[in-house]
Formats: sequence, structure tokens, C-alpha cells
Amino acid sequence: MYKKIDVGRKILSANEEYALKNSRFFAEHKQLCLNMISSPGSGKTTILTKTITELKGKIKIGVIEGDIQTDLDTQRIRATNAPAIQIETQGACHLSAAQVGTALEKLPIEKLDLIFIENVGNLVCPAAFELGETGKVAVLSVAEGDDKPAKYPAIFAKAKAMLINKIDLLKVPGLVDFDIEKAKADARKLNRDIKIFPVSAKTGEGFADWCRWLVESVSNLRQ
Amino acid sequence: MYKKIDVGRKILSANEEYALKNSRFFAEHKQLCLNMISSPGSGKTTILTKTITELKGKIKIGVIEGDIQTDLDTQRIRATNAPAIQIETQGACHLSAAQVGTALEKLPIEKLDLIFIENVGNLVCPAAFELGETGKVAVLSVAEGDDKPAKYPAIFAKAKAMLINKIDLLKVPGLVDFDIEKAKADARKLNRDIKIFPVSAKTGEGFADWCRWLVESVSNLRQ
Repeated sequence: MYKKIDVGRKILSANEEYALKNSRFFAEHKQLCLNMISSPGSGKTTILTKTITELKGKIKIGVIEGDIQTDLDTQRIRATNAPAIQIETQGACHLSAAQVGTALEKLPIEKLDLIFIENVGNLVCPAAFELGETGKVAVLSVAEGDDKPAKYPAIFAKAKAMLINKIDLLKVPGLVDFDIEKAKADARKLNRDIKIFPVSAKTGEGFADWCRWLVESVSNLRQ
Repeated sequence: MYKKIDVGRKILSANEEYALKNSRFFAEHKQLCLNMISSPGSGKTTILTKTITELKGKIKIGVIEGDIQTDLDTQRIRATNAPAIQIETQGACHLSAAQVGTALEKLPIEKLDLIFIENVGNLVCPAAFELGETGKVAVLSVAEGDDKPAKYPAIFAKAKAMLINKIDLLKVPGLVDFDIEKAKADARKLNRDIKIFPVSAKTGEGFADWCRWLVESVSNLRQ
């Protein structure tokens, strides 16, 4: 006869073990770490370079770049003089917590206020793998259509914030059909507390609010 | 002592077994089946509705729609009067060959010339799962950037054809930076034989060449 033994804790997957280790690391260092998740080409890297430039002298940002292949994005981040570590996943569709842990050892943590993780461009898989981050940020470009929160709910349900990018495309009448209020309402149906920032990383529109939220989030964590 | 036994065939995964079954089905029925793969929001559904409308009276098209959640896309396809079967993957990041096999039983195969599978919006994972299709078609919207073939090579290496969609966005000077020749050259570095069609599913530009290729492909298969 078998006897049921209550082990008293959830059995963690290997990824969850590494994620827990990363999240303890961020807590100890009072580090804000945001995991950026989106489809390919929504503008994550351009958002990051613009954010780093806008916040220069205010908060110090480091970046962990995830890509399937190439270090093109890391080159773009380093051009802003921010430290950036590239992870090439060699085909894998999401970053793992172990990869992030290894990258963290290479960043000058003590000199940073905020670490961005730019996940592999994929609106699906990265949402299911915790990296130990403080929060997730979903990015949706208006060129992708306003039906994406309804069709790909997982990331919008979990994200602390959502950037609706490329709003400059909406200025040309009839070019792109995207109802910002519909996208916002659909995201809020999944996640009542999600912060939503319509922005254009190209023109800088909307960046004041987004950057203010970042500065406040860093400051809240350090109090 | 162990003796090496040559089993004389590759051991297939469960997905590969189902894919092989589907590919035999397409061969027996001389059916062209194209598996459409792209990021979310590149315009796959709009391309399909436009293609069905353009080819009305010439070739009969059926669609298998893959989505994580909702049947919004199937409703759009059915509005063109083409038969469409929805698969909701409930979180999974790609269609499986077994799901496609089940959907095939519900389509009026004998009345069709061409079956499109619209995979889950994901430029990564669907490229790794064979569905038994005759060929893959990659879709890239110009809003996603011309670096995508280099950064997400798997699908561009495997695809029979590539649609560069939303080229109408390039007509407005300074709005979207996308070098069509660079995207073409990067895709051809991975895949010398890939057919490339720059199109706008919104305006219909480029559809004559794409539709001609589809008609020829159906006709070649039936000879």
C-alpha cells in the first residue's frame, strides 16, 4: 500500500528554480527588471534605445537581448552606450531563466537602476516562461491589428504594462485600421490593472508618460 | 555485449507520423496544401480573403484556421463563402499534424483545389512542426522590418514562397523603413529557390503574380 506524503511545497521545474534565483537576486539588489514581450517587429529595440536616450542622466539602464540568431539588436543598444548582453537562443522560441542568470553575471549590476530583458520576438511562448523578472511589458504595434489582446490573451493577462507602439502610423488617414480604445478595453478585460501607454518610438510621442512610470517604478522599489 | 541492430528507418515522432498521413492524403487527392506562417498581425487572414475573392471561379479554396483563442479569423474567411474549419489550440504556439488531420475530415475535399492552413501567429515554432503540407508560405509585413529573414531564418529557409505584405505603407515617404531588396537578398541567402511576392492585401497590388503562381501550382500538381 502506498502512503500519501505531503512534501509541503510545490515541485518546481528547472526553469522555475532558476527564475526564483533571479527574482531573489533582483530583490536583494532592489533592481527593477522588466521582461519585454511582443511579436517580431513590434519595435522593442527601438523603444529601448529611445527609452535609454530619454532617461540618460536620470536612471541607468542595462539590457539583456534575446534573439534566435544575430546580435544586431545588441549592437543597436550598445550604440546608446548602455551595457547590453546578447543571448542567442539558436532556434529556441523564448529565453530561459538560466540564460538570464548567466547574462546577469556579466552586467555591471551595482551601477544600474533598471534592467530590461528583450525576449525573443514571439507573442506566445515567452509568456509561459518566468525569468524571475519584476514585471512583464507587452508591446503591440498598431500595424498588427487591435484584435491581438483577444487572440493572444496570455501575455496581456500577465503584463504590468502594455505599450501600443507605432501610433504615428495612425496619423495618415485610411492607412492602418487600429482602434486604440478597443485594444485597451480588450486588454483591461484580461487584466484590470494593466498600465497602457500609446507611443511612437520613432517620433517620441507618449514617451513622457512611459518614462515617468519607469522612474516612479524604480523609485518605489528603492524606498 | 550489445549488438547494433539497424532498424532501417528513421523513428518518427507522433507529429511526424500524423504529418506523413496528411501528406499521403494530399498526394492521393492531388491537393495543393499551403501552410501560412508569420508573426501575429502580418495580414495572413486578409491575404486569404483577398486571394479567395481574386480566384473565385478559377480555383476553389478551403481554409484550416489555427488560433490560440477565438474564431474571429474563421468568421472572416466564411464571409467569402469559402469553407473554413477553426482549430483553437488553447494556448499552444503552433498547429499539430493531428489537429490538421481531424480538420481535413470536416472539409469538402473533393470540391476543393487548394487548402490553406493559417497557422498560429508565430514566426518561430510553427516552422519546426511539419503538418504534411505541400509547402510553407512565409508572410512578412513591411511594418515588421527588413531584418526578419536574418533574425528568424528557419521559416525563410524552408518556405516555398514568401509574401512581403503591406507594401502600401511604403508609399508614404518616411513612414516605414523597409528595404525590399535587402529582405529579398537575405531570404535568398537562406533559400535560393524561394518565390517572393511583394503585395498589399489591402489595395490588391502584387496579387496578380501571387494568384498566377497559385493557379500554376495547382495545375502542375494535377497534370
